[in-house]
Amino acid sequence: MKAGIIGVTGYGGLELFRLLSAHPEIDELFVFSSSKAGQELSNEVPHLYQIFNTKLRSIEQLDPGRLDVLFCSAPSGVSSELLPPLTQKNLKIIDLAGDFRINDADTYRKWYRKEPPPAPLADNAVYGLTEWNREQVKKGELIANPGCYPTATLLGLLPLLKEGILNPSSLVIDAKSGISGAGASPQSATHFSKANDSFSIYKINEHQHIPEIEQTIKTIANVDTNITFTTHLVPMTRGIMATMYAELAAGVNSQSIKEIYHECYGKKRFVRIFNEKTNLFTKQVYGSNYCDLTYAVDERTNRITVVSVIDNLIKGAAGQAVQNMNVMFDLDESEGLNQLPMFP
Amino acid sequence: MKAGIIGVTGYGGLELFRLLSAHPEIDELFVFSSSKAGQELSNEVPHLYQIFNTKLRSIEQLDPGRLDVLFCSAPSGVSSELLPPLTQKNLKIIDLAGDFRINDADTYRKWYRKEPPPAPLADNAVYGLTEWNREQVKKGELIANPGCYPTATLLGLLPLLKEGILNPSSLVIDAKSGISGAGASPQSATHFSKANDSFSIYKINEHQHIPEIEQTIKTIANVDTNITFTTHLVPMTRGIMATMYAELAAGVNSQSIKEIYHECYGKKRFVRIFNEKTNLFTKQVYGSNYCDLTYAVDERTNRITVVSVIDNLIKGAAGQAVQNMNVMFDLDESEGLNQLPMFP
Amino acid sequence: MKAGIIGVTGYGGLELFRLLSAHPEIDELFVFSSSKAGQELSNEVPHLYQIFNTKLRSIEQLDPGRLDVLFCSAPSGVSSELLPPLTQKNLKIIDLAGDFRINDADTYRKWYRKEPPPAPLADNAVYGLTEWNREQVKKGELIANPGCYPTATLLGLLPLLKEGILNPSSLVIDAKSGISGAGASPQSATHFSKANDSFSIYKINEHQHIPEIEQTIKTIANVDTNITFTTHLVPMTRGIMATMYAELAAGVNSQSIKEIYHECYGKKRFVRIFNEKTNLFTKQVYGSNYCDLTYAVDERTNRITVVSVIDNLIKGAAGQAVQNMNVMFDLDESEGLNQLPMFP
Amino acid sequence: MKAGIIGVTGYGGLELFRLLSAHPEIDELFVFSSSKAGQELSNEVPHLYQIFNTKLRSIEQLDPGRLDVLFCSAPSGVSSELLPPLTQKNLKIIDLAGDFRINDADTYRKWYRKEPPPAPLADNAVYGLTEWNREQVKKGELIANPGCYPTATLLGLLPLLKEGILNPSSLVIDAKSGISGAGASPQSATHFSKANDSFSIYKINEHQHIPEIEQTIKTIANVDTNITFTTHLVPMTRGIMATMYAELAAGVNSQSIKEIYHECYGKKRFVRIFNEKTNLFTKQVYGSNYCDLTYAVDERTNRITVVSVIDNLIKGAAGQAVQNMNVMFDLDESEGLNQLPMFP
Repeated sequence: MKAGIIGVTGYGGLELFRLLSAHPEIDELFVFSSSKAGQELSNEVPHLYQIFNTKLRSIEQLDPGRLDVLFCSAPSGVSSELLPPLTQKNLKIIDLAGDFRINDADTYRKWYRKEPPPAPLADNAVYGLTEWNREQVKKGELIANPGCYPTATLLGLLPLLKEGILNPSSLVIDAKSGISGAGASPQSATHFSKANDSFSIYKINEHQHIPEIEQTIKTIANVDTNITFTTHLVPMTRGIMATMYAELAAGVNSQSIKEIYHECYGKKRFVRIFNEKTNLFTKQVYGSNYCDLTYAVDERTNRITVVSVIDNLIKGAAGQAVQNMNVMFDLDESEGLNQLPMFP
Repeated sequence: MKAGIIGVTGYGGLELFRLLSAHPEIDELFVFSSSKAGQELSNEVPHLYQIFNTKLRSIEQLDPGRLDVLFCSAPSGVSSELLPPLTQKNLKIIDLAGDFRINDADTYRKWYRKEPPPAPLADNAVYGLTEWNREQVKKGELIANPGCYPTATLLGLLPLLKEGILNPSSLVIDAKSGISGAGASPQSATHFSKANDSFSIYKINEHQHIPEIEQTIKTIANVDTNITFTTHLVPMTRGIMATMYAELAAGVNSQSIKEIYHECYGKKRFVRIFNEKTNLFTKQVYGSNYCDLTYAVDERTNRITVVSVIDNLIKGAAGQAVQNMNVMFDLDESEGLNQLPMFP
Repeated sequence: MKAGIIGVTGYGGLELFRLLSAHPEIDELFVFSSSKAGQELSNEVPHLYQIFNTKLRSIEQLDPGRLDVLFCSAPSGVSSELLPPLTQKNLKIIDLAGDFRINDADTYRKWYRKEPPPAPLADNAVYGLTEWNREQVKKGELIANPGCYPTATLLGLLPLLKEGILNPSSLVIDAKSGISGAGASPQSATHFSKANDSFSIYKINEHQHIPEIEQTIKTIANVDTNITFTTHLVPMTRGIMATMYAELAAGVNSQSIKEIYHECYGKKRFVRIFNEKTNLFTKQVYGSNYCDLTYAVDERTNRITVVSVIDNLIKGAAGQAVQNMNVMFDLDESEGLNQLPMFP
Repeated sequence: MKAGIIGVTGYGGLELFRLLSAHPEIDELFVFSSSKAGQELSNEVPHLYQIFNTKLRSIEQLDPGRLDVLFCSAPSGVSSELLPPLTQKNLKIIDLAGDFRINDADTYRKWYRKEPPPAPLADNAVYGLTEWNREQVKKGELIANPGCYPTATLLGLLPLLKEGILNPSSLVIDAKSGISGAGASPQSATHFSKANDSFSIYKINEHQHIPEIEQTIKTIANVDTNITFTTHLVPMTRGIMATMYAELAAGVNSQSIKEIYHECYGKKRFVRIFNEKTNLFTKQVYGSNYCDLTYAVDERTNRITVVSVIDNLIKGAAGQAVQNMNVMFDLDESEGLNQLPMFP
């Protein structure tokens, strides 16, 4: 198979490159960059020095007819412009931006403050939360790869929401991300001297992943709700933890929660269910495609706490994209994704 | 004034030492340590080399009659044993452990898994949340200095709970702490190679600060409730952020919240109210006695988010203890506490 | 006294502000910024919110006649332009940039790749390494405050070089700095995701502090030499360690080294000599004006290792600037600089 | 092939496990632990949960006859006791401790302050610096896998020393390591609150890797010298940088250095030569078996600076051990070691 990556020098793009270059089914890998076309890849990212001596190509040089699969890791708002002219029969596209994730144009406008992508293409996009949308992904031509926060959140909540045992209006999600989630371009908030030894909150009630989570809760669990969702920056490079709170329906206890999770994910390769109240930490999934989950039922408050950790650049971005590619091409879902978490 | 510090080589004790040694009203400072008595202080903590050449004294050498004020920064469970024989007329005691914070013996037993301190002393203890208990602190002989998490939490919630505009049963508090909160003795969870570049959750639904928060909500805001309260470790040395969620009573809006906070804290020296939805970060209070607050009203969910940041070792421990001392001795509340936050 | 700070929102400027605002002899403090004039100071730096409600003034608004002392914390190359029109009788100026540190115009051009400042002003500048230039500083009108690396290096080496017991041509200085040394403006190398959990080397043999160190070795120890000097970035915010190596003259041993250091610095308030081979760490001076030193004599190689740690923003910048001000105005050298190191 | 790992829950052992479990030639992997025998591996190290459900075996359960290769990642001083009874025909052993690296018994006693291993076994040990000892490794039965610091140092210096272009008595090596190098057991110096945001020096002139480096310089480059070698702890988990200094022989210039390095390592898979004065950073080799090198010739001082970075747990421990295994079993040297560096 021949694969292309647009935006390879961003953090999502670099992880795509790392995973795909070791993927047993990928024979050729073409890398594209709008801003750095013409440069040597390894000039931009010295860790690839003498391993891959490839020039970055401009998007104009991208011939979609030569590719089997194209990953687009451009910033949100850019994919909508780049991808329409590149779509064609027999090319499967996996987009890592937010552009094709939101079904409703007005919702997109409100949260992204941008114009949504053109309708025909957007309407065909499949939301690539692999564990939940496997069948649609399999048949998809354009995958909207989920956001990092939605992946951690939805994998934790969907089993319980689908069973109808949570009070949807009580949902509170407190999410924390490593700083690579903010991307590769230097800004004040991600300056080392500002971010180090500090913990910050940002975009309170305004994060663009809110509608993505709500929409997926609706389409998959058939629950209509507005969530409270808050994002924080942790002084670490990778990792997301979502701590999620909800009121439990009457009669639900720890045992039933455990059964639901094991029933749902027991055979899923990349979701691991830990015992109740396990002290999860993000490093336990560092460098891997795992999503680890635990939960705690509090009888004092009749509330459940669900905890989810992922590597934001892998299960939250590039890893899930490769997982989707595997499904689309009928490969083993874990092909190229067998890296163990790296600890310490 | 003559002051003593028990447990000076712990992190709370070191901050007490730092603050008291620069306090204009303290003439003499005596330092005690159970485990390291007889050692030079600066052998144990090289940053004090050639500044304070003092031997650590054993508790047995502590003559309470020579002191005006005694700070006890021993671990929880130890204060109950150390302090009773040391109490005497004209000695004011400020205890930084949890021992004297919980009024109800069974509650103490349940959460601390220890025997509570003896009744006569315990019954006289005043909970030293300075901004809210100023009058009792003024007359107190034994101050139970608040925990770090309760300080950040209660300063954020009490104004709103007292006004009756939050649904108490909806309270969810998601708290994050720097690792100095776990104390000075090395453990697996605080080993650098384990904690660095990682974010972890711990003691889900079981943190001993839960009953302290609930009790204070009851005594100060007259609200009986069980809270959901979760604690996390951030890979940073100092700082706490509490992100707090509650449903709002009908008719409450941003403007009313703003007014309540300004009314309540407008003249309080150490609480700063930021505009709605400010991106707070813990480093903005690093090294200072400030508690910084912001909030956000979400009309979609009718829920408020309150955010509070403190330096856990200062406003969450030693700083508030000194603030209480100032109140007890009728000094200006900010005496010795005027350090600006240190940034970066 | 009335003091002004140019460039107050940079990291050196913020530390100057923190120190001067608590200095007992400073009555009024005026703050200037080229790029942010007109803004509220606390908008730019939220840690000062509600403490100092001051507008940042433009340099044009600076009336040197109203000030007793002016600190200039502008970038190197800018001071040379800003300061000449501001000099006037009775105004003492302390410049934190590199502009006035180099005596020789060609040397300045070579290492800074800029034009040197105009001669009359430059010729009057006094190099403000307080412990070594106290008398000249006292009489100075314009102080060139030393660089962070030169301060750590020179305080360690000068006592030995002056005694003539080091082979000057054998000097190797391996210096490591926290990232705040690279300034407040975001760049690729100081982006959190790039710098965190990584250690880097930069400007090998090309750092502009090299001629400053060599010139001071010449002027103070009367030794002409070219040094090997290398700089590294440590993933921490503050702190410098310089590890310095030299061959020892015949007959020198540990005892003689110890005596030289104690003789030289025994009465100096801000230099602390530790026992031979002490495991120094930068945090032991964090937030303070101390320079801590240790050394080790290796009989196997006949070489000495000298180790020096400072807080780069304090003893390496703002703290030494205030120390120089104290000397210039005949105040106690430690006025306003009594903060203990903050640990942890 | 069947492989065993002694000490699998240490940091070196965990990396061995990670690499070997993905190695195409390893069919079965047996894991041993003295202290944790009987426990589930994934209880000890949650990142392996549900991936490897293996009980840790005691050393007594180790049947050397069932293994093709045995990796011993026990602490220095323990290997000497564990390994002698386990040696037998057809079992290749790779030891990661220091025990078998030092040829001279007295030197071992002096630097390790322990008794050396028994002579017959020790005499057969081959020093496994793969790039330099390939032929001996190939025939070896017991490999003494190099220390992390010696690997970074020797790969940088040996090409130049062998060419005779450095003044051996001028060698100064300033080495910096991430904290995982100090092992998995919690201590005061590696406590997060002590180590974070701080940089420290330790074991000045006393590190046990000094005789290992000197001995290898002697055996491989035939140069007898005493080096100055200093070690520091960087607040990061993984990575070593060695910055090395030496006087150059007359007539040597940048071009000749470049040629020597390319000649020496041009065909070596895991050593990458960067252009002169490249700003290397440890993260560029994170998670990989690479050793990256740069250098700078300073005409002012006639000195060369050589810079080397490795991942201390991979090229500095487990990766090089696997590389040695590959050589011993005549496999491609890079089998199982093709992971790209992980950035960011």
